[in-house]
Amino acid sequence: MSNTAKIGIIGAGSAQFSAGIVRDLCVNKGLAGSHICFMDIDEKRLDKIHALALKITSELGVKLTFSKTVKPEEAIKGMDFVLNTAQIGGHSWTEAQRDMAEKYGYYRGTHIANISQMCFFLEIAKLIEVIAPNAWLIQSANPVFEGCTLMTRETKTKVIGLCHGHYAYLEIADVLGIPRNEVSANMIGFNHWIWLTEFRRNGNDAYPVIDEWIKTKAENYWKTHQPAFYDNQMSRAAVEQYQLYGLFPIGDTPRFGAWWQNNSIESKQKYFGHLGGFDSEVGWKQYLDDMSAAVEKIEKVVDDPVIKATDIFKPEPSSEQIVPIINSMLNDKPAVYQVNIPNRGGIIHGFPEDLVIECRGVVTGGGVSGLMEPPLPEKIMSGVMIPRWADAESLIHAAKSRTYDAFLAFILQDRKTHSIEQAEAFLKEWLKDPRNKYGIK
Amino acid sequence: MSNTAKIGIIGAGSAQFSAGIVRDLCVNKGLAGSHICFMDIDEKRLDKIHALALKITSELGVKLTFSKTVKPEEAIKGMDFVLNTAQIGGHSWTEAQRDMAEKYGYYRGTHIANISQMCFFLEIAKLIEVIAPNAWLIQSANPVFEGCTLMTRETKTKVIGLCHGHYAYLEIADVLGIPRNEVSANMIGFNHWIWLTEFRRNGNDAYPVIDEWIKTKAENYWKTHQPAFYDNQMSRAAVEQYQLYGLFPIGDTPRFGAWWQNNSIESKQKYFGHLGGFDSEVGWKQYLDDMSAAVEKIEKVVDDPVIKATDIFKPEPSSEQIVPIINSMLNDKPAVYQVNIPNRGGIIHGFPEDLVIECRGVVTGGGVSGLMEPPLPEKIMSGVMIPRWADAESLIHAAKSRTYDAFLAFILQDRKTHSIEQAEAFLKEWLKDPRNKYGIK
Repeated sequence: MSNTAKIGIIGAGSAQFSAGIVRDLCVNKGLAGSHICFMDIDEKRLDKIHALALKITSELGVKLTFSKTVKPEEAIKGMDFVLNTAQIGGHSWTEAQRDMAEKYGYYRGTHIANISQMCFFLEIAKLIEVIAPNAWLIQSANPVFEGCTLMTRETKTKVIGLCHGHYAYLEIADVLGIPRNEVSANMIGFNHWIWLTEFRRNGNDAYPVIDEWIKTKAENYWKTHQPAFYDNQMSRAAVEQYQLYGLFPIGDTPRFGAWWQNNSIESKQKYFGHLGGFDSEVGWKQYLDDMSAAVEKIEKVVDDPVIKATDIFKPEPSSEQIVPIINSMLNDKPAVYQVNIPNRGGIIHGFPEDLVIECRGVVTGGGVSGLMEPPLPEKIMSGVMIPRWADAESLIHAAKSRTYDAFLAFILQDRKTHSIEQAEAFLKEWLKDPRNKYGIK
Repeated sequence: MSNTAKIGIIGAGSAQFSAGIVRDLCVNKGLAGSHICFMDIDEKRLDKIHALALKITSELGVKLTFSKTVKPEEAIKGMDFVLNTAQIGGHSWTEAQRDMAEKYGYYRGTHIANISQMCFFLEIAKLIEVIAPNAWLIQSANPVFEGCTLMTRETKTKVIGLCHGHYAYLEIADVLGIPRNEVSANMIGFNHWIWLTEFRRNGNDAYPVIDEWIKTKAENYWKTHQPAFYDNQMSRAAVEQYQLYGLFPIGDTPRFGAWWQNNSIESKQKYFGHLGGFDSEVGWKQYLDDMSAAVEKIEKVVDDPVIKATDIFKPEPSSEQIVPIINSMLNDKPAVYQVNIPNRGGIIHGFPEDLVIECRGVVTGGGVSGLMEPPLPEKIMSGVMIPRWADAESLIHAAKSRTYDAFLAFILQDRKTHSIEQAEAFLKEWLKDPRNKYGIK
């Protein structure tokens, strides 16, 4: 017999995300009888996702119960698991911050939106610490790396950060023409900054297959293949990063891996193909359009009694690890996952123990234990890991201290900043924007 | 009765430096009877410094003996101390590398000259490891920070890095109008990257006096004071760095402390006064002129039998710590110095133990012991220390591995790099220059 869980979802209006979770819960027998509390400040979105969940479970006859609230406290108190998937101010505030930065010469913006995100994460983690101290906080909203580190340092809340980006190693297999079930991989680092330390086919090192592809087939691939916006794994960007730093970047890593690949639409197109990759003005627009389409799809399914929800949202497991991990914890079913956890014991040698790193971890009823890793090569440490850590600490300090100096120091560290006047002009506008809830303390 | 030392000086043709050492040896009674071996590949310079040393000691009747050689081995074998003050290729190669970089849009060059320096340092340290394993290597040539770290990691040679930059805290006292003998200070970090953690007058915290000066007098000081090129301690640059990062930068630190203060002659003049500071085209020319004048002065003193050497080179101690430290080691006279030593035990919390940091250390006959420090504030760690460490590791990796990738990764990390094409064009010219002795291995 299985235990049942109480799960709160903060930011449940994130349509695609929540729909996926509901489907995963429906197909995971270990979680039958569980309760999910959806929380979002957008009531309309909240109602839709709640209605969708009811419709799917009723069609499937699955024993899950649901509630909804606009108050974070109610999605936390009494819960065993709290999922945080919220985007503060929604896409519109994120885009407004980007537009603001672009006015001051920051092509495609800065990372300043992360500050509001992290401040909100910390509020949630502090709330959990007080009103649900035994709950696990599952963090899936970005920035997972810096956000989980801040929460780990500032609260006692048990935090685990999750992402599905690491599965992109399978896309390497696809392009190389290797069946997915023949490859295994290990990729570690920081979230959105993971590097392929092991890649095997049927147990044998398959890195040489990548090298051979680069030598003989890559140019032709880039010439003939028209990648989708999210299709960055085998881009010229990723290959160049691999060649420079010695390990292949996985998942979201190539998107952010090299500043010079991203300083104009021209360089983005050179490195990521005709759309300029995920983060170009073209690619990102497609992403936002996809998000809107997902919302519309949910509305349509909910509002039209003729449509069968499970025809649209098939009861198949998604690629998210969240529900399987909840099952491993709840029912003490040990399994290996890709997790973001504190670097306790120096899993990745050379970084502080209170920094949240991404690695493999075994999840059981007792929690999560990271798999110790051999030291990363000096080339990748000096080339990308330590510099990325430096950027992270600047962001963490800014989000934690919320002083003018700390914000300014953070923006000055941005490669796109060309003068202190530029940085200050942008910062001043950002600080006085009424939508900004997390300015100077 | 004192012990006598055998001291080899690599790069003894560095006129001003060697003349200072000779004077310091003359006035330090503990080193009477010692022998100094000058080594330089520039025989003319070598002869002059050797002749100057003989002239000074004969005028003073001091018991010191001297020899000279163009072979590093001869200045190492049998020595108790080896001083490395060499600049590979001399100022002309340094300037050629800067000019080369300027052609590709690097205003005032890159730090690539450090690579040749560090490769040469490592050769010397390896030689000492084999032919004089008990000798102390005293490193005064730059880059002390990265160079000492590389030698510490790659050899068993006992290395101590020395610099006189920390004494610039006394210039703060001068400007504040406090007698020098009333102030004490502590400043730690990495060489040329040290930050004032303690500043007292007669035992009381004197940081408020700095704050008051900034509030009430700084603007007028910058308006009326015409600083010499080396006069950067109380510059607008230093004050801005203090305000942003929370601790005052000391000595050479403000020269390198902020990229946006140094990206044009205009910004240098704004931040360092009319000459643009030490590293502007104006300031640096004055520095090089001063160096040439020092060489000429030595030639004149040596070549003209009428001139009394000690009238020109007064037998007074310089501000260098080298000779006092040799005395402390040789004659077991404990004293506190500002040293660059490995971070063993985590003297500066948060950095690897094999990174060479700058801190206070007690030197005795047994060697050097660093004074443990409380953790640095988060503001200074995230704002300047961790980013500076990231740059250092990139340079260390480049100097150690000497691959195309590592060189390119190092240049790409430079804030002045705007595209990979720019970085590669410069790198390719640098690699094929026949004066470059330390290209790809």
